[in-house]
Amino acid sequence: MTVQQQINRQIILVKRPTGIPDESCFKLATTAMPQPVSGQVLLRTRFLSVDPYMRGRINDRKSYVAPFQLNEVLNGGVVGEVVESDSNEFARGDFVVGNLGWQDYFSADEKEIRKVNPDIAPVSTALGVLGMPGLTAYFGLLDIGQPMQNETVVVSGAAGAVGTVVGQIAKIHGCRVVGIAGSDKKTKYLIDELGFDAAINYRAAPNLGVVLKDSCPNGVDIYFDNVGGEISDAVISLINNNARIPLCGQISLYNETQIPTGPRIQPQLLTHSALMKGFIVRNYADRFDKGIRQLAVWVQEKKLKYVENVVDGLENAPKAFIGLFAGENLGKQLVKVS
Amino acid sequence: MTVQQQINRQIILVKRPTGIPDESCFKLATTAMPQPVSGQVLLRTRFLSVDPYMRGRINDRKSYVAPFQLNEVLNGGVVGEVVESDSNEFARGDFVVGNLGWQDYFSADEKEIRKVNPDIAPVSTALGVLGMPGLTAYFGLLDIGQPMQNETVVVSGAAGAVGTVVGQIAKIHGCRVVGIAGSDKKTKYLIDELGFDAAINYRAAPNLGVVLKDSCPNGVDIYFDNVGGEISDAVISLINNNARIPLCGQISLYNETQIPTGPRIQPQLLTHSALMKGFIVRNYADRFDKGIRQLAVWVQEKKLKYVENVVDGLENAPKAFIGLFAGENLGKQLVKVS
Repeated sequence: MTVQQQINRQIILVKRPTGIPDESCFKLATTAMPQPVSGQVLLRTRFLSVDPYMRGRINDRKSYVAPFQLNEVLNGGVVGEVVESDSNEFARGDFVVGNLGWQDYFSADEKEIRKVNPDIAPVSTALGVLGMPGLTAYFGLLDIGQPMQNETVVVSGAAGAVGTVVGQIAKIHGCRVVGIAGSDKKTKYLIDELGFDAAINYRAAPNLGVVLKDSCPNGVDIYFDNVGGEISDAVISLINNNARIPLCGQISLYNETQIPTGPRIQPQLLTHSALMKGFIVRNYADRFDKGIRQLAVWVQEKKLKYVENVVDGLENAPKAFIGLFAGENLGKQLVKVS
Repeated sequence: MTVQQQINRQIILVKRPTGIPDESCFKLATTAMPQPVSGQVLLRTRFLSVDPYMRGRINDRKSYVAPFQLNEVLNGGVVGEVVESDSNEFARGDFVVGNLGWQDYFSADEKEIRKVNPDIAPVSTALGVLGMPGLTAYFGLLDIGQPMQNETVVVSGAAGAVGTVVGQIAKIHGCRVVGIAGSDKKTKYLIDELGFDAAINYRAAPNLGVVLKDSCPNGVDIYFDNVGGEISDAVISLINNNARIPLCGQISLYNETQIPTGPRIQPQLLTHSALMKGFIVRNYADRFDKGIRQLAVWVQEKKLKYVENVVDGLENAPKAFIGLFAGENLGKQLVKVS
């Protein structure tokens, strides 16, 4: 092992933010190289995943995943390359994915990682279309949304890692797809490249409700909600009878410091016999293999395109994370570490 | 036919209220006796059903049922006795139930009514435990709530026609049942007579959230919501992972003149992978027969008790309806007409 590899850089959480996090919450630290023990592999990080749900873990309160600890390394989806192996299952040069630390190197148990096949698609897709975001879109839309031909599907956060996949799977199922995103560049991409039927830049729409109504002349049958807040209020006011609303994220609310208020939605759900269901992708863990196989088929058939927004360098991971809340990313936000 | 039967009294809607209706919205009118035509039966009204959902029909706006028309007779569930018949299916003396007018007499088509068996239970139960409220409880709890042994079920509007049945069916399924109602008389009844594990008088609870938490030491798995508003906010703050929330009614909001606001519930549903679903009993029309058979078995086995609050006289129907919004009724609110 060469000298320059002896240093392991890590991103540490040093402060819990109130509201939107800034760079002072994070620190780049160096530490000794991890030493794999029996059965472990030493991984060199290639790509980090930067995800909105991590905002919840930065608060010191119970959510669906445990909070990050102060002064410890942040943690998230990582694609790594095996550089040393004391495992029979993994060999040097293998690519793997797992929920690991934001650092250059990591010692992982066999059970923490799974192999990624670099022949299907670039390994970074194991963090996007062929990873948690792709599976989130797949199960949320198909299991909760249950799209049927000619139904209208609206997806918010449409240009994000999950939203881009939701819209394309809905198209595969013969739906009319309307995306809501935060810039003209994004809406143009959704329509021109991903085949959405309509896309709305909510920042440019003087009255989102009116624009949405024009884009959904037959009402809304499925609303895949990544954002919450006023955007969701506008969509929910247009639901049809028997509408389904998979709740995937509420990014507009993650930085709120008080319980947000808004119009009560129960009367609308009641009068339309509508279903709303929260979920996290882990609920479907026993069906991940099937989901990834199907997503990979669609990718290879070119029915499912993927979009990555790659920032270079571990030191820029906090900036990439903060950028999520400014709506800067088109597609899956990644950090290329090596 | 005797002279006194020649007059048909009707309750007419003469004014649409803003907020809570009062008696000036209704008028008792008299009209000529209806004349049944070929295939019809002439019914004499025995019992009228008085239901919260009718509030929505009094507004002139689209909901899940069409609005009542001004200056026309109100309409709702009725148990009647056949006094004349030109039908092969119904004979003089038969009891029937249907969605008919609030009046002394009614000419009904065969398809509008179904026979009630007076040997199973008093015929008035066809408007309650063996009618729409019973079926509403049955399908909402079993189909959406899917109760499992030892789960905690909270029901609001617990002392009403639907709530009393929900709680008892949940007990039959081995659940811990907590009712929320509006008087000590009601909560005592729920515990002492219907076997609820706990019941809370929300009017007397200085902090409903605290009292609820004490009554639900293992959190809330199913919340059967009849009322909405702040009571529901308190219950929803206590839901467990994978909670189910059948939305049956929102009586606390029916008289609101603006869209009510409150804490956003999506973050709570999201972080608990919880399901909320609105429904109306009509969604289950193809399974009504099965539901009524099961409810009748439970009634005959004394596992399911029914409670009726009977007001005498057609002329008092508006008062009974208005009383629903003051929380006056224990069990099914009926008007005995003859």
